[in-house]
Formats: sequence, C-alpha cells, structure tokens
Amino acid sequence: MTLPAFSSLFAQPTGSPIRELFPYLSQPGIISLAGGYPSPSLFDVEGLDEACQRTMVRGGAVLQYGPTEGQPELREALGALMAGRGGVAGAGDVLVTTGSQQAFDLLLRVFLDPGDTVLIESPAYPAAIQALRLANARLITVPTDANGLDIDRLRVILAESPIHQRPKLLYTVPNFSNPGGTLLADGRRRELVALAVEYGVLIVEDDPYGELTFTGHKATTLYQYGAEWQASDNPVVYLSSLSKTVAPALRTGWLVARPDVLRRCAIAKQTVDLCTSALTQAIAAEYLRLGRYEERVSLAAAEYSRRMQTLTEALSETLTDRVRFVTPEGGMFLWVDIVSPIDSAVLFQAAVRANVLYVPGTAFDPEGKGLQAMRLSFAGPDMPQIQEAVVRLGQAFAEAETAGIQTKSVPAHHQH
Amino acid sequence: MTLPAFSSLFAQPTGSPIRELFPYLSQPGIISLAGGYPSPSLFDVEGLDEACQRTMVRGGAVLQYGPTEGQPELREALGALMAGRGGVAGAGDVLVTTGSQQAFDLLLRVFLDPGDTVLIESPAYPAAIQALRLANARLITVPTDANGLDIDRLRVILAESPIHQRPKLLYTVPNFSNPGGTLLADGRRRELVALAVEYGVLIVEDDPYGELTFTGHKATTLYQYGAEWQASDNPVVYLSSLSKTVAPALRTGWLVARPDVLRRCAIAKQTVDLCTSALTQAIAAEYLRLGRYEERVSLAAAEYSRRMQTLTEALSETLTDRVRFVTPEGGMFLWVDIVSPIDSAVLFQAAVRANVLYVPGTAFDPEGKGLQAMRLSFAGPDMPQIQEAVVRLGQAFAEAETAGIQTKSVPAHHQH
Repeated sequence: MTLPAFSSLFAQPTGSPIRELFPYLSQPGIISLAGGYPSPSLFDVEGLDEACQRTMVRGGAVLQYGPTEGQPELREALGALMAGRGGVAGAGDVLVTTGSQQAFDLLLRVFLDPGDTVLIESPAYPAAIQALRLANARLITVPTDANGLDIDRLRVILAESPIHQRPKLLYTVPNFSNPGGTLLADGRRRELVALAVEYGVLIVEDDPYGELTFTGHKATTLYQYGAEWQASDNPVVYLSSLSKTVAPALRTGWLVARPDVLRRCAIAKQTVDLCTSALTQAIAAEYLRLGRYEERVSLAAAEYSRRMQTLTEALSETLTDRVRFVTPEGGMFLWVDIVSPIDSAVLFQAAVRANVLYVPGTAFDPEGKGLQAMRLSFAGPDMPQIQEAVVRLGQAFAEAETAGIQTKSVPAHHQH
Repeated sequence: MTLPAFSSLFAQPTGSPIRELFPYLSQPGIISLAGGYPSPSLFDVEGLDEACQRTMVRGGAVLQYGPTEGQPELREALGALMAGRGGVAGAGDVLVTTGSQQAFDLLLRVFLDPGDTVLIESPAYPAAIQALRLANARLITVPTDANGLDIDRLRVILAESPIHQRPKLLYTVPNFSNPGGTLLADGRRRELVALAVEYGVLIVEDDPYGELTFTGHKATTLYQYGAEWQASDNPVVYLSSLSKTVAPALRTGWLVARPDVLRRCAIAKQTVDLCTSALTQAIAAEYLRLGRYEERVSLAAAEYSRRMQTLTEALSETLTDRVRFVTPEGGMFLWVDIVSPIDSAVLFQAAVRANVLYVPGTAFDPEGKGLQAMRLSFAGPDMPQIQEAVVRLGQAFAEAETAGIQTKSVPAHHQH
C-alpha cells in the first residue's frame, strides 16, 4: 500500500553522525576514541548490585507506575546533590527524566514553535543539534574559546537580534563540554546570566560532566547565579544525569526549573512516556543512599584525568604543530583542532585504515559546515590503548599529508 | 525576568483528566475504580527478583548505554511473543520503547505535520488523545459498539474525506480497549485492514491488554492481517507493552513496523531519550527467559475475570435499568453508559461524597464534548472492595437522582 506521507522533518531524516561510525567498531583490532560512553570498568557494580537487592526486597510498589514528576525519594536525593554543585534545589524543583536528553527534548516542546530562534554553542553536542533540527528551530551559533562560551560575541548577537526573532533559549554545556572539553569561566557565568535576564532568554545549562573534575574545583552552576539574581524567576534551567557518574543504564536524568516551566515539562512527559521507570529510580535512590557516590565519582575522575594526560602527552609528542588543543580540566573529551593543511575526510579514512577511530569535527557543527577538528574521547580506552591510538593517528596524519601533496600535484600534472 | 513565550500548545496546557483525580485518592477510606494500573498483588515479585539477580551478575554491559533500537536479546524475545498473538515478527521488526506510550509519540513525530488528520476511536485512551492534541492533529472520531470500531461508519468517513485532508493514521485498541473494554470482531479486522490499504491510512494497533483474555481466545492481530494482505508493505504498526502483563516499572514497550517506519522511529528516539534502559531491558529479557510469563499472565487474567464478574453482577443487581454495559471478555476496564437522566457532574460529586471514585466518561471523549458514562476499572480493588464500591455507587445514583428532581422542581416552585 502507499503509506501516508511522513512528516516534513522525517521525509529524509539523517541519523546521528556518531551512530554512523558504529559499523567501523566491528573492524578487528580497532581502537576507538570515538565513543561518548563512560568506562564500564569504573561502574560501581558492587554498589549497584547492593542497591538493586535493597530495591527488590521492597516488593510491589517499585514495580508499579509512578508519578510523572518522579519518585519523591529520588527527587529529594537529586535536589540534595545540587548542594555539592554550587546550587540549591528542593525535591519540588526537580523533574526526573529518562536521561537528560529527554529533559532537553521536553523543554523544546514546551518552548518552541516551528521557526523559533535558539542560540547554541559551537562546537556542540550532536544530539542537542539534532533535537533542535527536529523541533524546526532556527539556530544561531555562539563560538567558544578556551574559557567556554564567547560572551562578548553573544552580547553582539543579542543586541543585533530583531525583537520578533529574539532567541528563546540558549543551550550550553558549561562544565567540560562535549565536545569542547572547556570550562566556562566564573566571570563569564555572571555575565551570561545577566544577558539572559536582559534579553529574556532562557539558559539551558546541560551539566552531565561537572562532577568529573580533575582539579577538585567545582564551578558554581549557572542555575545558582540565576537564583541569586532572581530567586523566584530564575532564567536558568539546569539539566543533569547519573549516566556519566553512576551508570547510563539507570537512564536517570533530571531537570531543575521554576514551577511554571517544571509543570509544563511534566505535562509534556505524560504524553512522551508517562513516567520514568520506578524500578530504576528506586535503584538510583538506594544507590545514592549507600554513601558511595562521592568516592566513586572521585575515583572515576582520577582515572579519566590519568587517561587524559596520557592522551595529551602522546599527542604533543607525536603530532606537534599539526594539532592544537586546550587541556581539559575535567570530563571525558578532548577537542583537537587540526592545524595541518589536510583534507579532514582524507584524514578520517586514513585513520580508519590505521585502525583508530575518532569523531570528525563536522559532527559537532550546528551549522553543518564542517569543522577542521576531531573529538577524542579518553573515557573508554585504557592507557596502552590510548598510546597505541596516537601512534596510529600519527600514521594517519602522515598518510593524509602525502595524499594531500599527491592530490595537489594532479592538476599540475594535467597542465603538462 | 520575563520568560520567553511558551510554545502555542503549552501556553495554557491542561494535564491528564485522570491525574486530576489523584487528590481524591487520599480521601480516607475511598475505594477507587478509577485507576488504570494493574494490581500489584499479581506482580511476579519472585520471578522479577530472580531476573534481576541474573541480570546483575552479568556486570558492566547491562549498566552501559545500549542501541537505540533496543537490546538484541529483548528484541528477539518480544518478536517471539508475537507468535502467541497471531502475528509473526523477527527481532529486526521490533523497536523497544519506554512504554508503548513512547511508541505512539514517536509515530506521531514521524508522520504528523501540524493540522494533519487522524482517526481515533471513541471513547478513547486519554493519553492518546492528549498526545494527538499536542501534535496539533485534527481529530475525527470513529464510534465503537459492542464489537469494537464501527467499520461501516469508518467507511463513510473515509469515502467523504477530501483528498487533501485524507487521514494519515487511525488509532485503535482492538483488544479489550481502554476504556470501552470491547473486542474488535474478526470480520471487522479484515475489513479495517482492507480500508486502510484502500485509503492509504496507517493503522496504529495499540495492544497492551490482548493477553489478558477471560475466554482463552486470542484474536489475530491487525498486524498479521496486514502482513497477509501485503507482507512487505504492512499498513499496520503494532504497539504493545509488558506493563499490564509483567510490571509497569520495566517501562518495556515495543513497536513492530515495516523497515521505513521503524528506522524513522529509531531516529526520533535518539533525540527523545537516546535509548531505553539496558538494565530494565536485560531484566525483562531474563524474566521472559525464565518461562514463567505465560502462566503468570493466565493467573492475572483469571483474577481480573473474577473481579470483572463481581463488578458486573453487583452493578446488574444494584443499578438495574440505570446503567448499560457490554461485559468485557478481557482486560481491566468496564465501560458503563449512564441511562438515568442525571447530571454526570452531580453524580461524580455524589460518588466522591459516598467515598467511591471512577473516571467520568468525558475524559475519554476525543471531541471533549462529554460522554454520559463512567469507566470502572476492576483491576485494582479486590472482591469485597468492588462489592462495597457498587453499594456506594448506588447511593451516589440515588443522591444524584434526588438532586435532579429537586433541581427540576425549583422552576416549578418559582412559578407559584
């Protein structure tokens, strides 16, 4: 039969650029720096097993539907986590979501009509870009540098934006961003919140990585600066997740927002999936109650820090002058600008042949124009794998440079 | 600060009409026939505990992110479940979703542009109505009778629909529908599929209750009739869930669809929540592997059948001639038409005073006009509670009838 037409956005949809790399992962012996997953070797399997057992002895109620806003015990525990992040939130300020991705998607439903304008940092998290595209948003990119979002540029963009196309939201990952790996400077945080208030822009602060700090420093959340500015009228919505700190399979994300926003997100969630699993929520709450969270997050951060150092040292040694990067102070990602004058598509193919995988910078460009860069994740591979990966990257650069010279010589040859 | 404007659909959102009943549930001693939840006393806590333990010993991988389409072992197991439902599906035909609610929401994203036309049975599941409203769909209702969807009426609606407003989708719960409790007759299933093919309408077959059969009869799925009609080009998408047969907290729903639809739903799911919990999926797969599923579903159906009989017998005795209903052959719900000439709002308030709760028919009317009916769930309360609930309903009817007479007598009194 002839199917009815797909919606305009799904007529010719493109999937995640990162998922398109999946087939390469089955290439024998490949080392992947492409993943965005936390290292399973750092999961607290023992603690989660204990939490699971404590949950199951509670019987029926943890197997039932639960409130759309989330289980009260978990909302309480997540609100309490905020205290360690430079923020204050009670259970009533928290909406539990199926990962923080869902929280972002709910916000887009609640705020955006087709064609509405949204500000997004560049480079940016691809699933956020994709969600905005599927919401039919008009994107304006805000560049970032070593200290995060370029606030001066943002100020100009806002000042120049016509009132009828005023951006509604700004999306940013201020702590150890994916993919940039940068930390938004404290002074810029204050300026950002002030601009949001001045122009009536809602800041979406996505913070999955903030606790994975390599220096011990935890920056004050934008949410907290927003609360200090206007407590009852906070211009910041805070998103986070236990995926990078406890385990992705809990699918425990959350959103902290003022009541009018929270209520609408809960109504949107009713139609999206009714509620997040009461079982995984109970396991998450039991886990947080065990008191192992802080220590395990510190252990994970310390291991990621060692892997990051291995990676950056090897890169400095092997690819000196061909790449440039800012050393991350936390998180899971290193953003590497390619300085060599090589074709990044050729480099990627050479890397695959050398049996090493990364995500090309293009995946993170909200404008889809392509960025001469790579995102390297140091979370997944262990230290020897990282060192070998960089050796292989070195081979790929050499091959791509040779290819570049050959390509350039072709037209010359033809002239003869 | 002034927030940016909410999207047009969320400017003044209304929540679920059923959720609005929640405050009454805390009234001391109230008996609720309003719930849509399965009975926790029927959950296989022992089996789920076993499944949980078998899952946790598998360690790291069940705690990681998983494929958006779902864990291969679960897709396989859910495909196999289809065989018992008069249908054939392999793992590759199955998309695992966060409850079947998410599956419906994904389909709406993939197919609907604002203003597109959708056919929906009446009375209908409120969360489906709400999802369609939030997708800005234009709704056309198709009436139902004792044998489900009125196919003759549907034929007229389709024949009269202008080509540029041809309905894209038809939503129906053919097995023991929520709220109607009816079973779509086999002859009508064939006719429905033929109409879908003729007019290019995609049928969304939502089937959470089909296995809760009181007669042992399991109707052939619309999906299977669709496959027999055009195997590679099936006009039916099948949705189901383990929420009513195993436990809601697994949040394990699924969608069976042709590849072009499935692929788009998976892309939509990436932006919605990336993936469903690998942990709950592994628990669900381990549970299905234990071989307890069939027996436990039969036990649940037998218990629901007894509760349904208690309810219908008590209603026949207490409210003879004041109500009319079709005795369900499965599921969790009884739809009761109110024949007495009483104000349904007055009846509801009288019921709350008599300490019994039900969902007023209005909640299930896609046109929002109000239906002179009640949905009574027999899944939650036990037999003595059901009997007492009907006694109280009798009191409420008596009170509402008296109120009706008094109201009518007021103008007469004023004439004197």
